[in-house]
Amino acid sequence: MTSEKSYHMTPAEFRRYGRAVVDWIADYYAKIESLPVFSPVKAGQIRALLPAHPPSTGESFDDILKDVAAVILPGVTHWQSPNFFAFFPANVSAPSIFGEMISAGLGVQGMLWATSPACTELETHVLDWVAEMLNLPAKFRSTHSGGGVIQDSASSASLCAVLAARERATQYATNEQGCDGRLVAYTSNQAHSSIEKAVKIAGIGRKNLRLIEVDEHLAMRPQELARQIALDRQAEHVPFFVCATVGTTSSNAMDPLPEIGRICREHDLWLHVDGAMAGTAALCPEFRSIHDGLEFADSYCFNPHKWMFTNFDCDCFFVAERQSLIDALSILPEYLRNKATDSGAVIDYRDWQIPLGRRFRSLKLWFVIRHYGLEGLRHHVRRHVQLAQDFAGWVQADDRFELAVPPPLNLVCFRHRGGDSVNQQLMDRLNQSGDLYLTHTRLQDRLTLRLCVGQTHTELRHVTCAWRRIREVTAELE
Amino acid sequence: MTSEKSYHMTPAEFRRYGRAVVDWIADYYAKIESLPVFSPVKAGQIRALLPAHPPSTGESFDDILKDVAAVILPGVTHWQSPNFFAFFPANVSAPSIFGEMISAGLGVQGMLWATSPACTELETHVLDWVAEMLNLPAKFRSTHSGGGVIQDSASSASLCAVLAARERATQYATNEQGCDGRLVAYTSNQAHSSIEKAVKIAGIGRKNLRLIEVDEHLAMRPQELARQIALDRQAEHVPFFVCATVGTTSSNAMDPLPEIGRICREHDLWLHVDGAMAGTAALCPEFRSIHDGLEFADSYCFNPHKWMFTNFDCDCFFVAERQSLIDALSILPEYLRNKATDSGAVIDYRDWQIPLGRRFRSLKLWFVIRHYGLEGLRHHVRRHVQLAQDFAGWVQADDRFELAVPPPLNLVCFRHRGGDSVNQQLMDRLNQSGDLYLTHTRLQDRLTLRLCVGQTHTELRHVTCAWRRIREVTAELE
Repeated sequence: MTSEKSYHMTPAEFRRYGRAVVDWIADYYAKIESLPVFSPVKAGQIRALLPAHPPSTGESFDDILKDVAAVILPGVTHWQSPNFFAFFPANVSAPSIFGEMISAGLGVQGMLWATSPACTELETHVLDWVAEMLNLPAKFRSTHSGGGVIQDSASSASLCAVLAARERATQYATNEQGCDGRLVAYTSNQAHSSIEKAVKIAGIGRKNLRLIEVDEHLAMRPQELARQIALDRQAEHVPFFVCATVGTTSSNAMDPLPEIGRICREHDLWLHVDGAMAGTAALCPEFRSIHDGLEFADSYCFNPHKWMFTNFDCDCFFVAERQSLIDALSILPEYLRNKATDSGAVIDYRDWQIPLGRRFRSLKLWFVIRHYGLEGLRHHVRRHVQLAQDFAGWVQADDRFELAVPPPLNLVCFRHRGGDSVNQQLMDRLNQSGDLYLTHTRLQDRLTLRLCVGQTHTELRHVTCAWRRIREVTAELE
Repeated sequence: MTSEKSYHMTPAEFRRYGRAVVDWIADYYAKIESLPVFSPVKAGQIRALLPAHPPSTGESFDDILKDVAAVILPGVTHWQSPNFFAFFPANVSAPSIFGEMISAGLGVQGMLWATSPACTELETHVLDWVAEMLNLPAKFRSTHSGGGVIQDSASSASLCAVLAARERATQYATNEQGCDGRLVAYTSNQAHSSIEKAVKIAGIGRKNLRLIEVDEHLAMRPQELARQIALDRQAEHVPFFVCATVGTTSSNAMDPLPEIGRICREHDLWLHVDGAMAGTAALCPEFRSIHDGLEFADSYCFNPHKWMFTNFDCDCFFVAERQSLIDALSILPEYLRNKATDSGAVIDYRDWQIPLGRRFRSLKLWFVIRHYGLEGLRHHVRRHVQLAQDFAGWVQADDRFELAVPPPLNLVCFRHRGGDSVNQQLMDRLNQSGDLYLTHTRLQDRLTLRLCVGQTHTELRHVTCAWRRIREVTAELE
């Protein structure tokens, strides 16, 4: 058997090409500012460069790597460019990339504690660290009634929260029942689309999701929530779940957790708090007030893969009572039974998430926290917030522009006073120029531009340049 | 700003430590056969080695890398060891690891076509390649009514299939309705636990999942399926979904797709086919009969992250009519609107999956297919099947042992004739020895050992050694 052609790379080839890939990534970062942030390709342009059929025989890795540059790179929108200000960031860092590399090399599948104890225990431990770093209520730690788990995204975390809430309200899993159309969920009309998606997936039905009105800061009105719950109870619906947002996607609005929390407590509703991007700010004591009232929450999530230098996918999802989540999601077929699971002394994370399998994702988060330390992470959060506040100041000082809302942290929502059409043209021209990438939303029923400062390597010069380009293109339009 | 401490690694440090990580992985593979396959640690042992609190200031990457070896490695169950025969494999390869590295380096988020056109177009294109490589019906290609998408796992693919089926049967998403308890789903009593989990998540209710009886080959009995559907219709339930399995987890049993497919067609039920591990075999023309009847299916999935040298997560999920899937999962908030989406000319994969965000996962699959070519992939599939058949022959030739079922491909289900207790002891001692890792199931109500040949570097000598160790430990028990 050993004399036969194996088709595998030899160990020497692995070392050689592995180094070439590391250098390729380093070269990419060295030139990233020279590339158009927003890919200018047309629909179908990348596919047209790919062979119609798969290769019958293997190709050299040199050729493959050449094609990444020649075929793939022109179709990449550069999320890691310091001129990326769109959506929310998805920033990464060297230690995180190395964590992904080691995870890929080990190739472990952490569905059960037994299938790699270190994969489970490092995750539990690092999420307890994270709870300490953000100063979350103690109940969210594994050493209390709750604990943390890494999900692929806040969407999946929200879905898990809905399912755990459904279980606590109905014991569907235990009783083997399906939904009956009576359950009702609540969130603000500014909440992320993933709440609507979760409610649809879970069979609750979109018509049973109430989108509560917001105040002038685009934060949920607690009185409206209370009023709607009362109406639903009167109509013999069964309120079971509220999602409050700490930093909405459109405008970074902060729902008032203490008031919402008291209403949830009164009516025994599951409170999930979505802090997908803004949660990271709680690393810094001066921003921790965003989490006031979190002691009322049953679950909480934020994404180190947005603003904490950790590669997607890394959403940290915390529950106050882990048993509700496990009850909603556990399965135990014979082929997954093992002594460790039967002992009850270990966590099997397959019961804390939608899929069965899972990668070793805590490695990258562990690497990031150890490389930067709390000090380094705080430094960058403060720097990003300061840059956004600087930008907001420039906007306010220019009569042609206005802020849609005061920016609480690192997201600035602003617009030209000339109306939707001017703002649309401004955004399109800026993005087409390749110099920066901005996205939009609608606030106060007007098209509003969003500039979010959160990319790993964004510095003052990039934000200054963005503002200069905005003024230049504005001048062209006038 | 530039004179300030950045806490980031410098480009030179990135190159230096990146090479160190590549070498670390290469060194790991060089010594992997000397490590106990199944981690011998006790619950809590890894956590006890970790500092109670996160570091205030950053640490050196040398120290971090040292701890991977000292703290993490003892708690790793080595899925990439050639002596790993447990569960189904999760094999990886050098080109796949490099694909993960470049994906981590680019750090793109492919939720929309516009957020990185290459991420979407490469995925669509490579999944059309895969459909060609497995000779799937043309309807599953993007150039027809369907198309492929990479999911994290077959569990998520099954959930998407259930949701698309629910949508086609009820138009819940369009009509904004929740589940009403009438929908009924079907699968065999040998199907993967993820089907039960999907049905629970989707609000269908476990009581509305019928587990159809199987024949002596542990394959679903189509007459039983037809009978149950008739009973449910009589009781005014609404049958809507059938999952058939090509290669069950317990025993690699193959459900009869043509007969099941005709029943689904007759009753207008969504047929999902789960080929999570065995599907890869269809790379080889001589094994393609496992997919006979796939022309009746509405959706199909298999996992290159199991048996096709591609890192977890990489499940290929194909649908025959993409619109049902999109109807079930689409959301379009203002902040995600863009010209490409509005044009209808592009795919936005956020509407083909549970989460919103997604990694650039097609890179690793593209790398694997190009590196090995069809020829190399077929070589390894044939080699693994042959090794499993060799092992099955040795079992049959030993009076103390028996095969539970004839092994169709690369999974051998066997047991000592001495009963459950002997088999349990045999498995426990083998796994504790660290020489190999086997898992079990229950077949014909008896504890049965499973030996699955599918690890990238498993050769004849590893399978020979496994059989030698099995006989040695058996002798100790006698």
